[in-house]
Amino acid sequence: MKSALKIAVAGLGTVGVGTLQLLDRQAELVATRAGRRIVVTAVSARDRRRDRGIDLSAVRWYEDAVAMAADPDIDVVVELIGGADGVALGVIETALAQRKHVVTANKALMAEHGTRLAARAEEMGVALAFEAAVAGGIPVIKTLRESLVGNRLARVYGILNGTSNYILTTMRESGREFTEVLGEAQKLGYAEADPSFDIDGVDAAHKLAILASVAFGRPVDLAGVYTEGIRHISRLDIDFAEELGYRIKLLGIARLTDEGLEQRVHPCMVPRATPIAAVEGVFNAVVAEGDFVGRVVLEGRGAGAFPTASSVASDLVDIAAGRHVAAFGVPVAALSTLPGAPMERHQGAYYIRLMVVDQPGVIADVAAALRDEHVSMESMIQRGRAPGEAVPVVLTTHVTVEAAMRRALDRIAALASVIEPPRMIRIEDF
Amino acid sequence: MKSALKIAVAGLGTVGVGTLQLLDRQAELVATRAGRRIVVTAVSARDRRRDRGIDLSAVRWYEDAVAMAADPDIDVVVELIGGADGVALGVIETALAQRKHVVTANKALMAEHGTRLAARAEEMGVALAFEAAVAGGIPVIKTLRESLVGNRLARVYGILNGTSNYILTTMRESGREFTEVLGEAQKLGYAEADPSFDIDGVDAAHKLAILASVAFGRPVDLAGVYTEGIRHISRLDIDFAEELGYRIKLLGIARLTDEGLEQRVHPCMVPRATPIAAVEGVFNAVVAEGDFVGRVVLEGRGAGAFPTASSVASDLVDIAAGRHVAAFGVPVAALSTLPGAPMERHQGAYYIRLMVVDQPGVIADVAAALRDEHVSMESMIQRGRAPGEAVPVVLTTHVTVEAAMRRALDRIAALASVIEPPRMIRIEDF
Repeated sequence: MKSALKIAVAGLGTVGVGTLQLLDRQAELVATRAGRRIVVTAVSARDRRRDRGIDLSAVRWYEDAVAMAADPDIDVVVELIGGADGVALGVIETALAQRKHVVTANKALMAEHGTRLAARAEEMGVALAFEAAVAGGIPVIKTLRESLVGNRLARVYGILNGTSNYILTTMRESGREFTEVLGEAQKLGYAEADPSFDIDGVDAAHKLAILASVAFGRPVDLAGVYTEGIRHISRLDIDFAEELGYRIKLLGIARLTDEGLEQRVHPCMVPRATPIAAVEGVFNAVVAEGDFVGRVVLEGRGAGAFPTASSVASDLVDIAAGRHVAAFGVPVAALSTLPGAPMERHQGAYYIRLMVVDQPGVIADVAAALRDEHVSMESMIQRGRAPGEAVPVVLTTHVTVEAAMRRALDRIAALASVIEPPRMIRIEDF
Repeated sequence: MKSALKIAVAGLGTVGVGTLQLLDRQAELVATRAGRRIVVTAVSARDRRRDRGIDLSAVRWYEDAVAMAADPDIDVVVELIGGADGVALGVIETALAQRKHVVTANKALMAEHGTRLAARAEEMGVALAFEAAVAGGIPVIKTLRESLVGNRLARVYGILNGTSNYILTTMRESGREFTEVLGEAQKLGYAEADPSFDIDGVDAAHKLAILASVAFGRPVDLAGVYTEGIRHISRLDIDFAEELGYRIKLLGIARLTDEGLEQRVHPCMVPRATPIAAVEGVFNAVVAEGDFVGRVVLEGRGAGAFPTASSVASDLVDIAAGRHVAAFGVPVAALSTLPGAPMERHQGAYYIRLMVVDQPGVIADVAAALRDEHVSMESMIQRGRAPGEAVPVVLTTHVTVEAAMRRALDRIAALASVIEPPRMIRIEDF
């Protein structure tokens, strides 16, 4: 057997501890499969005295993670600190500069600096591996980059944020409103005290930007991701979705269009019979559509210490076994120059919900606004009558251009009989 | 860029032609991703004159595939002939003896000779790759062997035969009987003229034996797979399944038990809310349960020229890029000696359907037979009354041992009031 692979782990939060537990408990298994032992030689975290339930007596302890990354007796640095910049970035840059392989679960950092770091790893002849950065334990990076390597992809999309999916699932199942369910999720530890990272789509946007780079061989383009969260989703919309045969999911979607690569994170109406509609609670799923393979669906746990550690271990074993793939599937110099498609040019169908005063002529005014912007209505539901009071009106449109839809919504919002801002949810056709 | 990888393709049926089409149409893409070109240098098939819609003028043509496998100007032999023995086996053995990498889509051959061929490939220092042999375009071999490498698996199961799944789905949706739906599937080309390979579970057993080897690091053990097909599934059982909250699926299941590794292919009652219940028509799916990753579900097209070609391409690119994994994840010498668990010792719940003469005392006789074999009844449905005529009676049991269940069924079958052989379908708990 070859000599052991010596690794250093930077960051001992839940994923860091989970990774150490995996490498300890599965040490024999991993050694047999990798052809050599994987040994944790050094760790770094803020508080040495905290009891993490793991024995660290045999490893070198660094207060300074960046100093650890420069330790000459280390082959691989595993960065599990988090954050797009600061110490995490310092650790990775130092490791690469010292020709050490890097494994990271850091989506924010990869979304911000992925292309530059990939170029640096390539230059130094080492791996930059990040299976754990997208969709936790689901092997989506390896699948896109290695298994579907013979395919041109048309679209990649998925449920990339478990917190949002949990909230939407619970709202539907329990009949409760967003704020109440969010509060409960916070109590249960499924949502952070400051939940905006998850529920405003930021986390999903990071993951989508990375996925899109791998799927389409294009530099990471986080700024090109249109991002919208789930705060404005109400019970009323969830009920109407059911009635129309849809389910509301926060999706990240990257799609090739005539305008270039479209990248967007927003709530979607998805047909109830499509596989992704059935992915509930904290589970994540990713769907890839290739020209030869057709549709491939991967589902599993998108977060958590152990699933994420499973992906870290996968990257470590590839490095231990000498299996190398370029970070984004091709050398950085060969990444595509395909432009990004602006959201205003997006084409799709739309669900619109209005709260209107129930009086004659309202629907005619709304219909006129749509007609003036050349938006074609597909269906209209006006449920219940309450003369003189507010009632919901739901419209769905045929495929139209986002910019036209927005102009029509501005006109509709300005109507005196429309008493709340219109709600718009894009309908995704699978 | 490195020199081209020269490949020979043995067998130009639909998968062979699909593979040549993929390598032609995606040549640039594959070269960029693999770091070198993959060039088809030689092909072999029975009839040279047949028009396959592809240009073969630039490749060497061999009448004799085994002779082609010995061609010194070839790096990789792609075996797409099929059949467990004969020419296919000769091609692979010759290629390995000449230190050429082998890629195959041949499940029967891998199920029969996989361990021996893996040992031979290891000895010669070449790859034996077979992603295309299991579940068509779904990257299940790579996922089990590389992505879940840090996990001990408790169970791997899946819908591994598209023909059977299509028939069961269509029976449920259309309300028709097995024979009629099979005839239609044959007309549509979804089932062979001699369908027994698919509908008797043989094809699924081949795939399960391979999957189990990869998942549990154990020599391929086709003889250890208990196999039962779908010929005896009737509309009546499908309707009762719906009523009980189940769906009937032909599954291949490999599971660690106290008795050893259980491998079985048979129709199952699966809870309607479990992801695999929603996999319909010709789609396949594989589920793996790991101790760290939890449940991972992979779904996609399990057959067809292009999806299978996608998996062949994945193996070829790994070889072109120099990425090597042992055929069953560990060296052959390190494969587990875990015994196989006999089906008689299987423990699970059962669905039993009887056709009985509707007369007093029948249920008491049936209940006594179960009691005498210590099988505990969970529920009983007797739908409709027709005194003196045949009516269905459906029972479900608590978890019990297969041998006891079979003895109880023998007693029940011998009752005068039970006028057809009892139907038994195992209930799978996910």
